[in-house]
Amino acid sequence: MAYPGYGAPAAFCPPMFTPPAASDPMWGFFTAVAGQDGEVDAEELQTCLTQSGFSGSYTPFSLDTCRIMISMLDKDYSGKMGFGEFKELFTALNGWKQNFMAFDRDRSGTVERHEMIQAISAMGYQVSPRVLDVMVKRYSRRGRIYFDDYVACCVKLRALTDNFRRRDMMQQGRVTFLYDDFILCTMAV
Amino acid sequence: MAYPGYGAPAAFCPPMFTPPAASDPMWGFFTAVAGQDGEVDAEELQTCLTQSGFSGSYTPFSLDTCRIMISMLDKDYSGKMGFGEFKELFTALNGWKQNFMAFDRDRSGTVERHEMIQAISAMGYQVSPRVLDVMVKRYSRRGRIYFDDYVACCVKLRALTDNFRRRDMMQQGRVTFLYDDFILCTMAV
Ligand SMILES: [Ca+2]
Ligand SMILES: [Ca+2]
Ligand SMILES: [Ca+2]
Repeated sequence: MAYPGYGAPAAFCPPMFTPPAASDPMWGFFTAVAGQDGEVDAEELQTCLTQSGFSGSYTPFSLDTCRIMISMLDKDYSGKMGFGEFKELFTALNGWKQNFMAFDRDRSGTVERHEMIQAISAMGYQVSPRVLDVMVKRYSRRGRIYFDDYVACCVKLRALTDNFRRRDMMQQGRVTFLYDDFILCTMAV
Repeated sequence: MAYPGYGAPAAFCPPMFTPPAASDPMWGFFTAVAGQDGEVDAEELQTCLTQSGFSGSYTPFSLDTCRIMISMLDKDYSGKMGFGEFKELFTALNGWKQNFMAFDRDRSGTVERHEMIQAISAMGYQVSPRVLDVMVKRYSRRGRIYFDDYVACCVKLRALTDNFRRRDMMQQGRVTFLYDDFILCTMAV
């Protein structure tokens, strides 16, 4: 039987051609955030997201969520983001924000269990009801999922799925992990 | 070649005999923290650790660290702790606190990279230098690992190792995961 797939398109394919960064409208913003070392770490990202008002009336991003966001993109495990990754992150963040607002159907400002099930499924992930339960319990407070935790949950699911997919050469939905590699691709997210 | 093992004794073996909870000196403390539902969730745990002054002069525990602590013990994925797990958690926390103080050799109040390598190794984990790098980058701020993040890191490594070990029937250091099970045992920690 063919494996039905674990859903969601492969994330963050590198573009075919990357224009010179300096001509990009986001370049000035990036260099201001990155500071002297030219890369953005978790604390710089948190400051930038807070100051730019990205969360709006939602809860601001915790340092932990910022770390998870960076680790999602951080293929070389440097703990920092260059310009390309910074842009990818903002694209993804805008997607999750729209998604969050769309699935908060009763406009409570939070996503509840039944709304989360629809959101995860709309993103294309195919997970069992048991996994959905675990996710909702892990990321909700008194049954409500706030925007910060919603993003942390989406980022983590995406990073774990990407790590799994990269090792699932035959796309069979099955991967054999050595202990060290298992810890490598799960500790950072 | 025999696999050298991934170290660290199996965590949280259930005791052979559990005395009636009411005769236990921690019972009153537990019931006060747990409230009406008789179980401790992440927010109750955070309040309890803050009010009891457990962190001392160290940074208080974030809600995220409290959630990870509960998920480590939460075999039925209820998101809450009963009395037995609550006691196990305090035993583990005391161990990590002693461990943290012991390996902070220069008494900076934080554990630095070279101190962390010794701490992880003393706990019995056998991970590659690359995994150690990833852990230090993920849990440090400007090169320093604070107590809250140290505990989050230890809890996560222990929970992931336990999940892996439980599936590694032959103790070969190798486990084949289906996608859904991989997400189940990595999303909650
Ligand atoms: Ca920087
Ligand atoms: Ca809602
Ligand atoms: Ca130190």
